[in-house]
Amino acid sequence: MAVYTEVPDSELEEFVARYDIGRVASCKGIAEGVENSNYLLHTERGSFILTLYEKRVKACDLPFFIGLMEHLAGKGIACPTPIHARNGGALSELCGRPAAIISFLDGMWPRRPTPRHCQLLGEALARFHLAGADFPMRRPNDLSLAGWRRLFEACRGRAHEVAPGLADELARELDLIEQRWPKDLAIGTIHADLFPDNVFFLQDRLSGIIDFYFACTDAYAYDVAVCLNAWCFEPNLSFNATKARGLIASYRKARPMPASEIEALPLLARGSALRFLLTRLYDWLNHPPGAFVKPKDPLEYLRKLRFHAAVGGPGEYGLDP
Amino acid sequence: MAVYTEVPDSELEEFVARYDIGRVASCKGIAEGVENSNYLLHTERGSFILTLYEKRVKACDLPFFIGLMEHLAGKGIACPTPIHARNGGALSELCGRPAAIISFLDGMWPRRPTPRHCQLLGEALARFHLAGADFPMRRPNDLSLAGWRRLFEACRGRAHEVAPGLADELARELDLIEQRWPKDLAIGTIHADLFPDNVFFLQDRLSGIIDFYFACTDAYAYDVAVCLNAWCFEPNLSFNATKARGLIASYRKARPMPASEIEALPLLARGSALRFLLTRLYDWLNHPPGAFVKPKDPLEYLRKLRFHAAVGGPGEYGLDP
Repeated sequence: MAVYTEVPDSELEEFVARYDIGRVASCKGIAEGVENSNYLLHTERGSFILTLYEKRVKACDLPFFIGLMEHLAGKGIACPTPIHARNGGALSELCGRPAAIISFLDGMWPRRPTPRHCQLLGEALARFHLAGADFPMRRPNDLSLAGWRRLFEACRGRAHEVAPGLADELARELDLIEQRWPKDLAIGTIHADLFPDNVFFLQDRLSGIIDFYFACTDAYAYDVAVCLNAWCFEPNLSFNATKARGLIASYRKARPMPASEIEALPLLARGSALRFLLTRLYDWLNHPPGAFVKPKDPLEYLRKLRFHAAVGGPGEYGLDP
Repeated sequence: MAVYTEVPDSELEEFVARYDIGRVASCKGIAEGVENSNYLLHTERGSFILTLYEKRVKACDLPFFIGLMEHLAGKGIACPTPIHARNGGALSELCGRPAAIISFLDGMWPRRPTPRHCQLLGEALARFHLAGADFPMRRPNDLSLAGWRRLFEACRGRAHEVAPGLADELARELDLIEQRWPKDLAIGTIHADLFPDNVFFLQDRLSGIIDFYFACTDAYAYDVAVCLNAWCFEPNLSFNATKARGLIASYRKARPMPASEIEALPLLARGSALRFLLTRLYDWLNHPPGAFVKPKDPLEYLRKLRFHAAVGGPGEYGLDP
């Protein structure tokens, strides 16, 4: 939930006039997303999302994100498309921040994902991977192994404030994951943050994927592992194998997964759980008192991490080899 | 900035199906308003505001607020109109809370109000008062004298945490305001919270007034005094007499103010400053740590209160008798 930047109406009108989308009719801050300021913009021509990129997004990464949305939308993936200004650019500046207007996507994200949602997600993720395969830009995943090590070092001294013994457990996990991390999986453009609030549905179809601001070049199967964590645990943190099976089966129908990817899933899921645990832990320990954004509970991901650590093989997720 | 209630998509779809507004296309929480959960709802038929009334709004007051919007909109005032469900009702329930769908109003609220905004505001406020004069329902202003006394008693023990000597100063102010408070001014339906974020503008016109959840039956001139506090101080808290003069001159053109109302303005403005000082002080002292809503600075209104206390008469606001 975040609107960090207040946009004065005169600056907004001037900004929108650079685009061929008619005059502003209204502009309301959206209480979703935690990295950027997002506004739902109505103009004479329709609805758009206005995003102001706040400091957590590096300006040098923006051409990758904007270019990716454009590439995917051009290939028929249901995702937002950047609107180009009259001068041709899709990236501009507003209130001293990089800013973009992107197309508005109908749909709602599922507060209570069902097996059917997971099935539709699997297919959409595979199509996303296929469509992104020839995207020419590269961006390393700065929230992979090296990034986890950095986050861990920044948190280890205070991790016990969140749970006793947490620093030791994380140190052991990180060592083990670093040793075993697979290096030979197929690599391409991945979303890397495909949580339910980034996937819209409308009636019985998946209407779009949003929020490409963690997208990067990494193993496709890692993206699947992120989804296992984000979609297949129940609110009580039990693992729903029906959801996992449906997600992966529909993924494999659109993009076959080699055995090496299936074999790697428990470790990838363990690593992905560690990734969200560490970023949440960091935010938990470092959020300013009275901040607008309520930090998410890191311990949810400690429990997911432990689940994956105890898994003997992909069969325990309900998967066929 | 607030969205308190997460509405599951299935419950939302069922709720919207009770209205003749087509199917839901999207629904996004709005980061504005602090009392209720507000969503910008797109359906096949257009844009609407979905409001879930949270606990700060008393359910028994809702028919007054809903009825008032309907009354005013019917008289041509630019304000939201409640949409009636197929069963005829404008008030329903969603996620265990009272809820309503109201029409969407184009426009943006001014982050930096100009003298021109104040002029347009004055006329709109007068028209609001005239249109509400025959609204048949009554609601006492529970944030007038008796309410201030209650708030003060709830805060006095800890007021020194905000500023040394604050409790004594507030006690003196409250005594004095209670003694001198005018009892013979014209009474009617007032907005009572007409801050810039509740008034929308589009190009050079005032496109609407929103947020009727403090509306009540009280002196018209008190509403004018609230606007003096909310619109006529600069960010450095100097009083802008040009704005005040423009606001009141255009108000008087549409609704003549008797001399008694003009004479009472300094005291009404002093009382209104005390009202916002006390509610902000209460929220400041009582907001839960980590709450989403950042409390507003009470001391802004202490400075406004002192300004009005030092005023010799309405002439010092730049007003003619």
